[in-house]
Amino acid sequence: MKTKNTSDLLLEAIREKNNPTVLGLDPKLEYVPQSMKDQLLKDGFSGDRFIEEALFLFNKGLIDATCDIIPAIKPQLAYYEMYGQAGLAALSRTVDYARRVGILVILDGKRNDIGSTSEAYAKAWLGDDGIAKGDFLTVNGYLGTDGMQPFIESGQGLFVLVRTSNPSAAELQDLELKDGRKVYEAMADQVELWNEGLIGEHGFGPVGAVVGATWPGQAKALRTRMPSAFFLVPGYGAQGATAMDACQNFNENGEGAIVNSSRGLMLAYKNQVGMGPDDYKEACRIEAMQMKEALNKAIEDSILTRK
Amino acid sequence: MKTKNTSDLLLEAIREKNNPTVLGLDPKLEYVPQSMKDQLLKDGFSGDRFIEEALFLFNKGLIDATCDIIPAIKPQLAYYEMYGQAGLAALSRTVDYARRVGILVILDGKRNDIGSTSEAYAKAWLGDDGIAKGDFLTVNGYLGTDGMQPFIESGQGLFVLVRTSNPSAAELQDLELKDGRKVYEAMADQVELWNEGLIGEHGFGPVGAVVGATWPGQAKALRTRMPSAFFLVPGYGAQGATAMDACQNFNENGEGAIVNSSRGLMLAYKNQVGMGPDDYKEACRIEAMQMKEALNKAIEDSILTRK
Repeated sequence: MKTKNTSDLLLEAIREKNNPTVLGLDPKLEYVPQSMKDQLLKDGFSGDRFIEEALFLFNKGLIDATCDIIPAIKPQLAYYEMYGQAGLAALSRTVDYARRVGILVILDGKRNDIGSTSEAYAKAWLGDDGIAKGDFLTVNGYLGTDGMQPFIESGQGLFVLVRTSNPSAAELQDLELKDGRKVYEAMADQVELWNEGLIGEHGFGPVGAVVGATWPGQAKALRTRMPSAFFLVPGYGAQGATAMDACQNFNENGEGAIVNSSRGLMLAYKNQVGMGPDDYKEACRIEAMQMKEALNKAIEDSILTRK
Repeated sequence: MKTKNTSDLLLEAIREKNNPTVLGLDPKLEYVPQSMKDQLLKDGFSGDRFIEEALFLFNKGLIDATCDIIPAIKPQLAYYEMYGQAGLAALSRTVDYARRVGILVILDGKRNDIGSTSEAYAKAWLGDDGIAKGDFLTVNGYLGTDGMQPFIESGQGLFVLVRTSNPSAAELQDLELKDGRKVYEAMADQVELWNEGLIGEHGFGPVGAVVGATWPGQAKALRTRMPSAFFLVPGYGAQGATAMDACQNFNENGEGAIVNSSRGLMLAYKNQVGMGPDDYKEACRIEAMQMKEALNKAIEDSILTRK
């Protein structure tokens, strides 16, 4: 019997907004417009309270500007941990706010450990009493099944690192195995195993895969190899991949993937003529509309080409 | 020119205390003795303040009981994240306290990401303005060199997951490559590369390796394969490995590794006749003394056998 899982919710949210884009929220204090910081200082904020408020307000501005057209956010945990307790307080508030306006939350933490410790991580990031509750968490599968089990049992969704978007990804991930597979293909096969018996209404399991947009050839092959995995696709924009590259991560129905942009959306004002830091929200919305159109067009063209 | 790096500091701390043991601090509220919790409630602690104080005092008790005989602690970040902001506050205080009493701190977070994000993680866990500053951080090398670089540039020490101690470790890590190596051996070779040009006074680089004590055969071969890497050895005690198993991780001088015990030390009272939760500190010290003796004896015997 097929029941609704987190991948179903994500797919339905993407359909509803007709947009397979996730807004990466990796804030830095230097990204927050000076006018916003001046106002906070004027209002008496200082120290950790200033940091928390500045990061949260920056994020809130981006969410407000896009929550009617974007189905999900992806906060990268490192950028909050970097600011200590203040950063994590801003993260909690950001996630709560996203829930309130009805968008999904992918927490990008790439967590991994042995079973007993993964259980603690699952409580921290996919449970009710941790720091922030994600609908999804990114994880690293290097430790194998017993390290994955507690994450899967949480009932929330996961994205396992399969083929990452960074320049050195090939060093380990592309090594060729004796049986002819690459290391990342072996990881992909694990993902399919982990989804066994857990496929939802729309054909996807709770265990998705991180597959970079920067390697379109590999993405295309992985799409066929992992039919049950929803793809989280980094690398668009600031990391160099185009909509044409990213569309390889979608299946023959033009579904089953969500493309992330972080700096490209957060700092979109830098690419808009006549806009400055104070226009970061408007610029983000313009860029998000363009990204949506570019992705949808590339996906449509790619489906036509296959037919 | 050889200069002192974090591995030198660790080796010297181990020599000074004649003990290659690290105290794993993975606290849970249920581990904290009821008498301690009752006292906190009586003192008016509640909610997050109660959690923070209980976890910190539990840890402080273990550090006080062992800091003259143990060179380092290894807090596993998951157990603190699980308790939200309160847990991370307890972690900060634990790390500060460990520094004050002069023991080294290995933060077990298994962090990993692309370069720009690793930089944020390095600030969070190896810098001065994050949540807690480790002398070492455990990391996952699946993303390759550009993801490692910011960690290495921090100047602090690292332990890269090479061969983990858990039952499913073999699934990916033991796959055989076309060139005859296993995946974990390829990771080991990367560790040696990352240490190039960074070897310290005592022959070790800043990039160490996590090599489980539960697979002594592999540990022995890895010890030869990675002469420049200090080994962090999980799996002793609660996970089933003995001193004889763990000693395979040490080099021909009986050095270059540190063996972790978490539950085995934190909950040592469970294995001591006539002791209960209130005796957790004394029991931890007794167990730590026994572990030290068992490890030193196994290492000595193993050196004699090789000769």
